[in-house]
Formats: sequence, C-alpha cells, structure tokens
Amino acid sequence: MKLYWAPQSRAFRALWMMEEAGCPYERVHVDIRKGAQNAPAFRAINPMMKVPALTDGEAAVAESAAICAYVAERCPEADLAPPLGSPKRGRYLHWLFFAAGCIEAAYTEKFTGAKLPNTSQAGWSSFERVIDVLDAAVQPGPWLLGEQFTAADVMIGADLNYGINVFKIVEPRPALAAYVARCTGRPAFQRAQAIDAAGA
Amino acid sequence: MKLYWAPQSRAFRALWMMEEAGCPYERVHVDIRKGAQNAPAFRAINPMMKVPALTDGEAAVAESAAICAYVAERCPEADLAPPLGSPKRGRYLHWLFFAAGCIEAAYTEKFTGAKLPNTSQAGWSSFERVIDVLDAAVQPGPWLLGEQFTAADVMIGADLNYGINVFKIVEPRPALAAYVARCTGRPAFQRAQAIDAAGA
Repeated sequence: MKLYWAPQSRAFRALWMMEEAGCPYERVHVDIRKGAQNAPAFRAINPMMKVPALTDGEAAVAESAAICAYVAERCPEADLAPPLGSPKRGRYLHWLFFAAGCIEAAYTEKFTGAKLPNTSQAGWSSFERVIDVLDAAVQPGPWLLGEQFTAADVMIGADLNYGINVFKIVEPRPALAAYVARCTGRPAFQRAQAIDAAGA
Repeated sequence: MKLYWAPQSRAFRALWMMEEAGCPYERVHVDIRKGAQNAPAFRAINPMMKVPALTDGEAAVAESAAICAYVAERCPEADLAPPLGSPKRGRYLHWLFFAAGCIEAAYTEKFTGAKLPNTSQAGWSSFERVIDVLDAAVQPGPWLLGEQFTAADVMIGADLNYGINVFKIVEPRPALAAYVARCTGRPAFQRAQAIDAAGA
C-alpha cells in the first residue's frame, strides 16, 4: 500500500491508522504547500486534490475515514474492526461516519464562525451537540466500542486531540481529556507523531 | 430490523436502501415535527436526536451512510457492495464517506451562504469542487462503480436528486441529470418515494 500524505495535515489520521495496522506500506509525501496535490497523477487518485489518499494495487481510496475503514478490512490481523455479523458492527460504522460527517463539519462551523439557524438545518446539528455526544460516548471506555480499540478510535481520537490540544476549540472536559490521553499514549500514535514531526 | 424515520427528511436515503436490500424490516415513524426525536428511548439509539436510525437485535446504527453500509453487509444477497478483497472496495468506501463528509457539508455551505476563505480550510473544499468531482464520477456509468449498483449510489443518487430536483441548488448538468434519472427510475426508489409521500 502507498499512503499519500503531508505532515501537519488532516492526513495524520491515516498515518496513525497505518501505524496501528502494522501492514507494510510506503509513504509518498505530497507537497501540498507547493501545490503537488493538483498534479494530474494525484488527481486520478483523489479528484478532490487533498491528502490523504491510499493506493493498493489497482485499488484507490480517499477520504480519511474511508482509508481507516479500508485498512481495517485489509489488515484483519490487527483487529481494528469488529467482524462482520458482530453486534458491535453497527456502532463501529456509526462512529466512523460520525467522524466524517459531523466532527469535521462542526469544527469548520466553529473555525469560520458560521451561524446555523437551528439544529435541524445541518446534518451535524451543531458544534455543541457534537461535543456533548462525544463526551457521553467515551465515558464507558476505554474505547468507543469498549475493550476493542478500532479504526473509529483513530478517527475520533485524532480529531479530539486536534480539537483539544492543537486548535484548542474543544473544552478539555475530564472524560474527553482522559480518552485523548489514552489515544496519544499508544505506541502507534507516538510513532505517527514522530514521523509527522520529522516530515518524512 | 427497525428503521426509525420520518417522511420528507434526510431519512429518505435509508428508506430507499431498505427497499433496495429487500430484507424484512419494520418502519417506526418518529414524529420529528412534534419533537419525538428528543425522547430518551430514541436518544439511546441516536444521541444526535436525528432520523434515520436503525436497530437490529442489540445492534444500533445512526448516520445515513453508516446505515447504508450496515444494511449492505447485513443483506449480502442483494449485492449492494463489492465483497471484501475486491479492488472496487476502496472506491466503494470512498464514495460512501464522500457523501457523508463532503456532499452534506457542501449543501449546507450553499444553503447558509457560509463563505470559506479557501479550499484547504474545509474537508469538502467547496461546493463547486464537490459538484465537479461528482460530475466526473458519474460519467463512465451507469453507476459509480460501473455495472454494480451499490449503497454508495443510494447515498449519492439521493443527494443529487435532492440537490437538482428538490432544492434546486445543483445545476442539472447532462451527466448528473442522466445519473439521477437512472436512480429515480429504479423500482426500489419508486417504492420508497411512494412510502415517503404516503408518510407511513
């Protein structure tokens, strides 16, 4: 597998996922500060011209949560998803799509100061409701689905870490802060962070 | 399976998916105009207090695209997803998450008139880029993955139908309009539309 990524970008989530999965992969640095994401060869992989993207033989995937879901399927020995037919499968998919559909948009709402007239207008309701839902979701612990750490924790743990510790737009409520500390304490997270900091 | 839904809502996508899947299911009307989505029993199923949601024995799922992905797994005989290990699996996941993460937010951007400073700020880049990407994606046809109609077509076909024919915020470019016509011509779409119109 080849991971197309750039340091200090949304691609961190996919990078962390690759480190959790433990399958061999190659990193391809797309220099987004110089516009490398607009090159035709990269547009064929991700027409949105964004990192991350992943290729795997003739398969190609973009969107961070799709990459996390794909890699969990591709590397089953890492046990990063409940198996098909498990009663936990519903919530697994729920939290993966919640990250893609609700957290990302809620953060953008917060950054841009966009005002939404009411909670029925946006699929993500509101920034405040998204944070309340996450605060409740991480309380049973240690992970979103209980004892099993999954690709959904990669997406949501990375997003909460950014929100609390990097962008400081999410209030560090005790349950959220403890969950993020469990995530950032994982060896795979720390390897990904070191790669990200080194930029290669 | 029980589908919690409301007519004339974002739950239409899940309703259409159930009709495509052909597995037995029961519809539970959540009267969102009277606030039924705020009842504690429903909040336990979807803490975001939104339709659609799905229960299946002890499993629960919310987020429309998660429900579509779940039902495709749950009803494999309907052949609404490429199997694990297929080279089409990457793009399948990509388009499902693209619907959840990019189309929904781009439509909200358009509705609210929110101005984003540049395309790197939002995960969905911009409304215009999302439409350009969809226009290219549906051109090989007949479906997003070629000959196989999948759950990703349910999400994206329903969103494009709303954008072009209901909200009229998406320009009916020829390839997009033809794709939507193929979607709305499917018997399962028409059954869902009849259920939605009857409100039960």
